[in-house]
Amino acid sequence: YVILSLACVVAYLFVGLIPFDALTHGMTTVATGGFSTHDESLGYYDSYAVLWVAILFMIVGGLPFSVFVAIFFTRNIPKLDPQVLTFLLIIFFSCTLLILYQNGGQTKSIYANTEYIFNVVSIVTTTGYSSGDFMNYGSLGPVMFFFLIFIGGCAGSTAGGIKVYRFIVLGQVIKTSLRQLIYSKGVFLLRYGNKLVDQDIYRSTVTMICCFFACLILVTLSLAFCGLDFITALSGATTALANVGPGIGEIIGPSGSFKSLDDIEKYILILAMILGRLELLVAMAFFLPIFWKQ
Amino acid sequence: YVILSLACVVAYLFVGLIPFDALTHGMTTVATGGFSTHDESLGYYDSYAVLWVAILFMIVGGLPFSVFVAIFFTRNIPKLDPQVLTFLLIIFFSCTLLILYQNGGQTKSIYANTEYIFNVVSIVTTTGYSSGDFMNYGSLGPVMFFFLIFIGGCAGSTAGGIKVYRFIVLGQVIKTSLRQLIYSKGVFLLRYGNKLVDQDIYRSTVTMICCFFACLILVTLSLAFCGLDFITALSGATTALANVGPGIGEIIGPSGSFKSLDDIEKYILILAMILGRLELLVAMAFFLPIFWKQ
Repeated sequence: YVILSLACVVAYLFVGLIPFDALTHGMTTVATGGFSTHDESLGYYDSYAVLWVAILFMIVGGLPFSVFVAIFFTRNIPKLDPQVLTFLLIIFFSCTLLILYQNGGQTKSIYANTEYIFNVVSIVTTTGYSSGDFMNYGSLGPVMFFFLIFIGGCAGSTAGGIKVYRFIVLGQVIKTSLRQLIYSKGVFLLRYGNKLVDQDIYRSTVTMICCFFACLILVTLSLAFCGLDFITALSGATTALANVGPGIGEIIGPSGSFKSLDDIEKYILILAMILGRLELLVAMAFFLPIFWKQ
Repeated sequence: YVILSLACVVAYLFVGLIPFDALTHGMTTVATGGFSTHDESLGYYDSYAVLWVAILFMIVGGLPFSVFVAIFFTRNIPKLDPQVLTFLLIIFFSCTLLILYQNGGQTKSIYANTEYIFNVVSIVTTTGYSSGDFMNYGSLGPVMFFFLIFIGGCAGSTAGGIKVYRFIVLGQVIKTSLRQLIYSKGVFLLRYGNKLVDQDIYRSTVTMICCFFACLILVTLSLAFCGLDFITALSGATTALANVGPGIGEIIGPSGSFKSLDDIEKYILILAMILGRLELLVAMAFFLPIFWKQ
């Protein structure tokens, strides 16, 4: 990671950032942290070269680290983990859909199209940089980015969120169940790539996602109870639990900030962010009475 | 059901509805259909006796039919299915929370408090009657009713939605997984009441809920693509898939209607409602190539 982050810093320097900015942004790009020294985040530089460097290194941050270890030691690209392919396909299809949708009425500039890709990658990798405001991307923008918040990067990466491999496991559950419905006497096993899915992995996937949504409901209700509106409460809870950054709506969208929220609302979000980063299950065990009885 | 519906019609007549209205509303209360002859739905009568009759018979509609069969034949109340208790607890806690929240600033009238209970029951049982507008219930109202839309009644009832027993199964998954995490060598089984949860039931529960959310994402994105805003697209998709009725927001909330939507948006919602009523899995099998190859 030190090598990758250094490469990122050098790349930022190369596209014209001052050394201090290159260093600070370099430290939060591969780490998918998304902390910027400017209020407008990376949109401040108004340069598509800067955005492309960020896109590239955010994707690097969202890939499993094992891929880089394999490349470094074997010096050839390893056989791809299914989650890497799915992760890249999600980014590709989201960007394509958004670019087609946005260029439907009138053709946009190259910089605007770069911003679309940049924002998709920033949200999917849970980095949270922004450039421009996806709330202005017609009616599709807010809804699409809301769903992208849930995804998160690959397992074994620096990204947060639900993570891509869990969605692959759930997709396999739907697929095998539908087959079972048609061939009622067939035996269909859950597969992940070429391997069978272990019962433990399946169980922990279902548990983690149930916990995620249970926490999402609790956090959203608490925020709404404190007085936040529907979009702010729901997307604020989601973005905190998935460790992304910007939410949806005018208050906490990419152009807004969490500054205007009350203290109590911030404490709720702090708790949600910690729960989300610990992947919920470990954190939730603390609240069980039997944990303390041991 | 004929007996229950007739009892409902008689009860409506008793609280002062004209025979035609009593008949039409009687036919859509126990059936949790929610179709009314008035634009203001049951709010038209401005009478809390009418609302209480509706509350009672909507709950009857949301309970499993087997409970009534057991009462009719054995003439004593059967040992309760866990889903009945959970269903009633969900209604009780939602109503309590809402009444406390709404009476926090100033005490509301008995009619207003009856309306809160009425609207909670109407949404949880997927009936979809309304009286007053839950969009005006402070900031908590819209968020709470959005989550209530997902619940649905008990399995074996006339209600739609995800259904209570599936949430019980998921709750058990979280519970057993957390125990497993602490006692790593223990063996914990999924229980539903006193019985063990069959692997098939567990699997179909997970599949149905995955399908529900997959459809929700697709329908919401399609509606947003057609130009609906975030709240309308998301809650419209949810309310259609769960067969509830009113959505959240100004356009399709309880005071609004789906009238202003475009034709294409209505076709998407029609498809969603049919998918939701068929509990998704059967309907989705139609779209699989292997179904047609047989």
